[in-house]
Amino acid sequence: MTRPPIPNQTTQLHVDPSVIDLGVGQPQLSLLPLERLGQAAALRFAAGAHDFLQYGAEQGDGYFRLALAEFLNQGYGFPVHPDQLFITNGASSALALICTLYARPGDTIFVEEPTYFLALRIFADYGLRPVAIPVDEDGLSVTALEAALQHSRPAFLYTIPTYQNPSTNTLSAERRTRLVELSREYDFWVVADEVYHFLQYRGAPPPALGLHAEQDRVLSLGSFSKILAPGLRLGWILTSPERAAAFAHSGLLASGGGLNPFTSSIVRSLLDDGGLQTHIAELKQVYTQRSETLANALRNHLPEANFHLPQGGYFFWVRLPGNLDARAIMPHAEQFKVAYRPGAFFSTQQGLANYLRLSFTYYPAGLIEQGVARLGRCLRSLAP
Amino acid sequence: MTRPPIPNQTTQLHVDPSVIDLGVGQPQLSLLPLERLGQAAALRFAAGAHDFLQYGAEQGDGYFRLALAEFLNQGYGFPVHPDQLFITNGASSALALICTLYARPGDTIFVEEPTYFLALRIFADYGLRPVAIPVDEDGLSVTALEAALQHSRPAFLYTIPTYQNPSTNTLSAERRTRLVELSREYDFWVVADEVYHFLQYRGAPPPALGLHAEQDRVLSLGSFSKILAPGLRLGWILTSPERAAAFAHSGLLASGGGLNPFTSSIVRSLLDDGGLQTHIAELKQVYTQRSETLANALRNHLPEANFHLPQGGYFFWVRLPGNLDARAIMPHAEQFKVAYRPGAFFSTQQGLANYLRLSFTYYPAGLIEQGVARLGRCLRSLAP
Repeated sequence: MTRPPIPNQTTQLHVDPSVIDLGVGQPQLSLLPLERLGQAAALRFAAGAHDFLQYGAEQGDGYFRLALAEFLNQGYGFPVHPDQLFITNGASSALALICTLYARPGDTIFVEEPTYFLALRIFADYGLRPVAIPVDEDGLSVTALEAALQHSRPAFLYTIPTYQNPSTNTLSAERRTRLVELSREYDFWVVADEVYHFLQYRGAPPPALGLHAEQDRVLSLGSFSKILAPGLRLGWILTSPERAAAFAHSGLLASGGGLNPFTSSIVRSLLDDGGLQTHIAELKQVYTQRSETLANALRNHLPEANFHLPQGGYFFWVRLPGNLDARAIMPHAEQFKVAYRPGAFFSTQQGLANYLRLSFTYYPAGLIEQGVARLGRCLRSLAP
Repeated sequence: MTRPPIPNQTTQLHVDPSVIDLGVGQPQLSLLPLERLGQAAALRFAAGAHDFLQYGAEQGDGYFRLALAEFLNQGYGFPVHPDQLFITNGASSALALICTLYARPGDTIFVEEPTYFLALRIFADYGLRPVAIPVDEDGLSVTALEAALQHSRPAFLYTIPTYQNPSTNTLSAERRTRLVELSREYDFWVVADEVYHFLQYRGAPPPALGLHAEQDRVLSLGSFSKILAPGLRLGWILTSPERAAAFAHSGLLASGGGLNPFTSSIVRSLLDDGGLQTHIAELKQVYTQRSETLANALRNHLPEANFHLPQGGYFFWVRLPGNLDARAIMPHAEQFKVAYRPGAFFSTQQGLANYLRLSFTYYPAGLIEQGVARLGRCLRSLAP
């Protein structure tokens, strides 16, 4: 049998170094806190306790949840209790577990339009049927949501309330209240993907939907992927103590124990000594600057494109002029050695063709500027 | 709102120190290689590369898969190629992913009688319907399997071919061949949970079912939980390159990247320098002695009980005399400060009432001896 060559690769992406792929929604390698995590690991091993190598408490290490609750208390500005937290392998793992326990194949779910395209892939694996609810500058349209609820009841609504991927919009305080009311009235779960919440560059968003996690039908997903390191595969679900315990009592957890005892025990040191907060402050500084660079580059090189300066998160959501189809242009962009994610990826309705998503987290300022310049040349070469 | 006290616990189990719970199927804390893993972690961080902190290659770190394939080559005695491996968060995580991608709620699956009771919990979460196939001293009865196949076709068969949990029986070489033939003929998947394979105390078992993973409908599950440390949540699926790639292309992986880039990168050092092999050799020595201790204690304190000395793995499967109901006796045993897992836990048919499962991995020899003595006193106190 002939084998393909072994792709000896550690990371998910292999970006051709000659291409500037502004679509990559990942942190730059050099921004990952190798030294901080190395010290935290050394500290944990030096402590001499073996327990973090054992099958872990199903809901997550109790000491880690205590430290995480304290971090969220401070970061969110409302009380979070350790028994409201269930520790996951990140937001994607949380979504998979929610699809298992809160839905059955064939169920309708509501998603945003646009929405995070890879979440759609997870929902598809579980045989769920997404119905799109539009997003505008104040986030998810609760009017459209209420109208859709007249026709069908979703197993859950999947929303990214803050610095949405890809639209960058944030759900207003009024709409958050209304969304929670509707979930009560129409009896559906709100699955809030809040992984960008702490990446605030220009003012603060309304309180996280996790605020309603205890009293209402809200499952708030958090993750260390965007604020520390994706390779850890570590995150949490913030919900009511009863629901957090129910995740812990599922078969997967009963069999394998907690989802990440080893890594959570290492990260606990960074929660205890404030290392995580320091790292987030550093990230915010870097990302604030890079988002300015990207905005300026767009103004200079794509003056005909329409966008809002994002208040936080990872992305720009750019509307191309006229009837340009961002997906159709991709092979052309490739010749200019630049890439992006076309808007159509984020649509469940074959819409958003003239949008594209750009990120400012993967490249330093110089390459961001250069990438947008290439994109500008690419688009101008297409002009009639 | 009144809160329960925070259970500041790291490990899954909290065993009352006054009780000897011979049912615990976990390694003793002091057997977990803290120092070895600490050195491996230090080495990984000192290497200075950030890539293991990034979103990981979906199928698993290529370097790690290369080292793991080499380890399996040697351990299994047949060729294993890195592209046949998909890296998981352990066997339970693998089962959950298989339930997602290889079955739909309502599907029939075949399980062994007795079988690993917590796997049944996972299958229940996915709405699967287990049909029991009996196990005898040569493992799964392929005759009974063939008869069952006349009535229904399972989405998959879940089997623990070697040192089965709980029966300790090992599937014979002839039956392995027949099982694979049947899977071909009747078109079902064989999900082989091979996590005990390397814990061999008295001779070698037939080749792992992973031998057939490339050519046939076999998904062979492996894990570092039993041979290194459960807290790592690290394991693998050995199957055909096409199926391994298909796991990697599922929604969960596309979104979150590889399931455990951080930990696998640390464990890679132990594969490269032979540390894992040394650790397994040490474990085998300890467990061989402890299993002798448990056998002798049973002969001394429960001469009326029936059991086979296990050839490997974690367990003894003990048949009580007469019509004793092991589950009914549990409260009585509690008074004697001893515990076990009753046979009924491992049955999908409310059978096996007079069996119990004991483990010899969690306690040192002295406590094993003492626990069995307590059990003997408990049973004698019940005698008419």
